[in-house]
Amino acid sequence: MKIYPGCFPCFFQQAIRAARLAGSDEKKICQILKKVNNHLAGISLEKTPPEIGRVVYSVVSEVTGIQDPFVEIKARCIEEALSMYPRFRDWIDDSSDVLEAAVKLSVAGNVIDFGTGQDFELERDVQKIMAQDFTVFHIEEFKDRLKRADSILFLADNAGETVFDRLLIEEMKKPVLYAVRAKPVINDAVTEDAVKSGLEEVATIISSGSDLPGTLLSACSEEFVKIFRSSDLIISKGQGNFECLSDEKSPIFFLLKVKCPVIAEYIRVEQGSILLMKTDSYDW
Amino acid sequence: MKIYPGCFPCFFQQAIRAARLAGSDEKKICQILKKVNNHLAGISLEKTPPEIGRVVYSVVSEVTGIQDPFVEIKARCIEEALSMYPRFRDWIDDSSDVLEAAVKLSVAGNVIDFGTGQDFELERDVQKIMAQDFTVFHIEEFKDRLKRADSILFLADNAGETVFDRLLIEEMKKPVLYAVRAKPVINDAVTEDAVKSGLEEVATIISSGSDLPGTLLSACSEEFVKIFRSSDLIISKGQGNFECLSDEKSPIFFLLKVKCPVIAEYIRVEQGSILLMKTDSYDW
Repeated sequence: MKIYPGCFPCFFQQAIRAARLAGSDEKKICQILKKVNNHLAGISLEKTPPEIGRVVYSVVSEVTGIQDPFVEIKARCIEEALSMYPRFRDWIDDSSDVLEAAVKLSVAGNVIDFGTGQDFELERDVQKIMAQDFTVFHIEEFKDRLKRADSILFLADNAGETVFDRLLIEEMKKPVLYAVRAKPVINDAVTEDAVKSGLEEVATIISSGSDLPGTLLSACSEEFVKIFRSSDLIISKGQGNFECLSDEKSPIFFLLKVKCPVIAEYIRVEQGSILLMKTDSYDW
Repeated sequence: MKIYPGCFPCFFQQAIRAARLAGSDEKKICQILKKVNNHLAGISLEKTPPEIGRVVYSVVSEVTGIQDPFVEIKARCIEEALSMYPRFRDWIDDSSDVLEAAVKLSVAGNVIDFGTGQDFELERDVQKIMAQDFTVFHIEEFKDRLKRADSILFLADNAGETVFDRLLIEEMKKPVLYAVRAKPVINDAVTEDAVKSGLEEVATIISSGSDLPGTLLSACSEEFVKIFRSSDLIISKGQGNFECLSDEKSPIFFLLKVKCPVIAEYIRVEQGSILLMKTDSYDW
């Protein structure tokens, strides 16, 4: 998925939020935005939004000198999600369909986001998603694929959401590779975040080799791409991964909350929708 | 008032809206945004927002080949405002303080806006303003200055709002120069709009000589600046004029609805406030 008009103002809003978080004053933020202008001037319109996202956040780090403005936010999200874990573990166990319940919780964890600028309260918003129906729900196809899959790749999104992914992986009852970003970008999960979330107990944590806020294969390590290409089932969490993988011819199920109006229009669903959606690009 | 961080995403949002209005598809809009971005990269941060606004709208015109995407919208706003004129004329006549009532109506007309991206419905939003208190209301100072003023300059803002300004000018009972933009930019009033709104009957319509969406003196004609400098009382309508004139040492009363969060923070009032505010920069 390429850049759409609505991405342009969003890049600047993201830069403003990240710069504020890094403690910049208005003057410094303007300098950062000017630098984002300069970088965008040289960038092709054929790029995916996360490729520009990487540029935006690297400009913020470069000008402010703060490598990871989201480090504290990420720790807080993981902590809060961990405190909810036992309750949701019980809720799944009491469900008539434990796998469906776990899928629902994993997408509920995707309410966490610091890229799109939507405020969220984890507890309240997770509860809201729990009461919401999926707009696209390819659950039978997912169950079928899962049953037959030997190699499963799970593409992580945000720190904290990781705890909710753990609940899903527990119910999948299969070996899973859990792929995180190679370096901090926005509040996306890196290895440390996955470990803190307890993913080591249920999956093998690997790095995608990329520092984009999305899994763009051309930016990933050769080793990761090999794994990606040979996986029987890929679960892709969140918007950034979707933006990078919407055209990939691989057996991908996208699991996300649609928070951005551009993506909503692209998929032709309402903003706020939740989806478990097998990709159109793969010959199933 | 200079550019603030929040202006950057807004410039792109304005370009998107204007380009859509000019019938551009997503691809053309992206090209326009790229051009806007490239202009921004080369522009000083010491500029006022309307100076960048001019660049934004001129890029839209240049790429789409449509000089005035707002021409129909402007005509519609004037027509709608004219249909409300007799009713508001009566309302003023029935008021205990006709000048205060007319000031209120003039600011109510400032709900019209296509720059800030806020939706409005003229009838509904005017009624809402009529029921709203001014957050800053220097009415006694205004009355006093008006009584003593021989030369009055009234800086117009949007087409349609012009009809509401006419009601105020009628109650001022003094000769007034009514200044409009030299060329179409956004939905700002030009001479033709002022004439259609009936301003010729109550004031002398003049051009500021500028095609910015605001009265920036360095972009105005020499003749206009002379008038500006020698006026006893200047009534400045709307945000664009405020952004250009906030630091000018002239006897200005700003009359506006604060629609933009950046201006709200600059003045330290809530977004949505209405103001009749004498400038701080003049030695009254």
